[in-house]
Amino acid sequence: MLHLAAPTDPAWVQAALADLPSLLLDHAHCEKKAASTAMNLIFRYVEDEGLMEPLSALAREELAHFELMLGVLRERGLRFTRLEPSAYAPALLAAARKDEPHRLLDTLLCCALIEARSCERMKLLSEALGPAGEPRLAALYKSLLASEARHFHGYVELASERYGREVVVARLDLLAAHEAALLSNPADRPLRMHS
Amino acid sequence: MLHLAAPTDPAWVQAALADLPSLLLDHAHCEKKAASTAMNLIFRYVEDEGLMEPLSALAREELAHFELMLGVLRERGLRFTRLEPSAYAPALLAAARKDEPHRLLDTLLCCALIEARSCERMKLLSEALGPAGEPRLAALYKSLLASEARHFHGYVELASERYGREVVVARLDLLAAHEAALLSNPADRPLRMHS
Repeated sequence: MLHLAAPTDPAWVQAALADLPSLLLDHAHCEKKAASTAMNLIFRYVEDEGLMEPLSALAREELAHFELMLGVLRERGLRFTRLEPSAYAPALLAAARKDEPHRLLDTLLCCALIEARSCERMKLLSEALGPAGEPRLAALYKSLLASEARHFHGYVELASERYGREVVVARLDLLAAHEAALLSNPADRPLRMHS
Repeated sequence: MLHLAAPTDPAWVQAALADLPSLLLDHAHCEKKAASTAMNLIFRYVEDEGLMEPLSALAREELAHFELMLGVLRERGLRFTRLEPSAYAPALLAAARKDEPHRLLDTLLCCALIEARSCERMKLLSEALGPAGEPRLAALYKSLLASEARHFHGYVELASERYGREVVVARLDLLAAHEAALLSNPADRPLRMHS
């Protein structure tokens, strides 16, 4: 349903539980970046009127989640600081073709896949955090994963309205395979939401 | 109270009433740009933790107003399209000093002044639109001007927390004089929210 080509390696969940401060800090940055990506699309595709309201509402929701994660960090005595981002999102978005209308199609689908992966990982976190003695974080991730799933479907819907379902599914297959390859061997990288 | 060095030329209000489609379209773009400016500050000053939540909440509110203005355009049968922006905001922000910590101080105060001018002009619009046969737009601007005033005070407060009241007031005096000069002779330019 989330159109992911491979499930997350269980080693990632163990690494996340072992380093919650890095996970939570990176997650706050991810929400900020997701808002910024939606905002950049609003500016880049200003002539595509049908993108404006859905992307603006999405950016607002990502910002609200950014603020939520700042609160989680504060409650745990953690500071919000700069953090070396994972190479995942830039590497995924680099697969977008450079010529229009392919560029918009691919960008929307890359954004969809990032949301899908976040959703899948938040589900894993929501299941693993309770038994690990973090019931409040488990509940937080359970509440957030529904938004991520909604954002995935929103991006796919925006793409389908413009390019048709068949084109979208074929391209999503290809990009999903690329996305899954980027996440293989998580132990080789510092822990991030998308390591 | 809004720290503006000069009131808006009454000719601007007449020009706005005479070209509501341009005013409303430019206003939608202004809300989008205000959100983007707040978001850019979040990225540029990520180490200043105290800026994150106020600027994120502000960006969300600007985006909500962007969506509101898209609805107003749609109701009036107007399309949201690209529009040559006024030179006002870039010219005002160009007065910000380039070295830190001055750059942040000046940028916060320029943002404050843009909000202050929007507030002043929305008050003028709210008073003039009713007699001009546009009671719903008058009510809209009456509701929005309170947000603009709040944003002005928010930006000034963020500056005061960091630089002290005395420094802020002195710099605001100078930047306000520059801001007022940018808006003299509105008849020389195409109508915009900040022409």
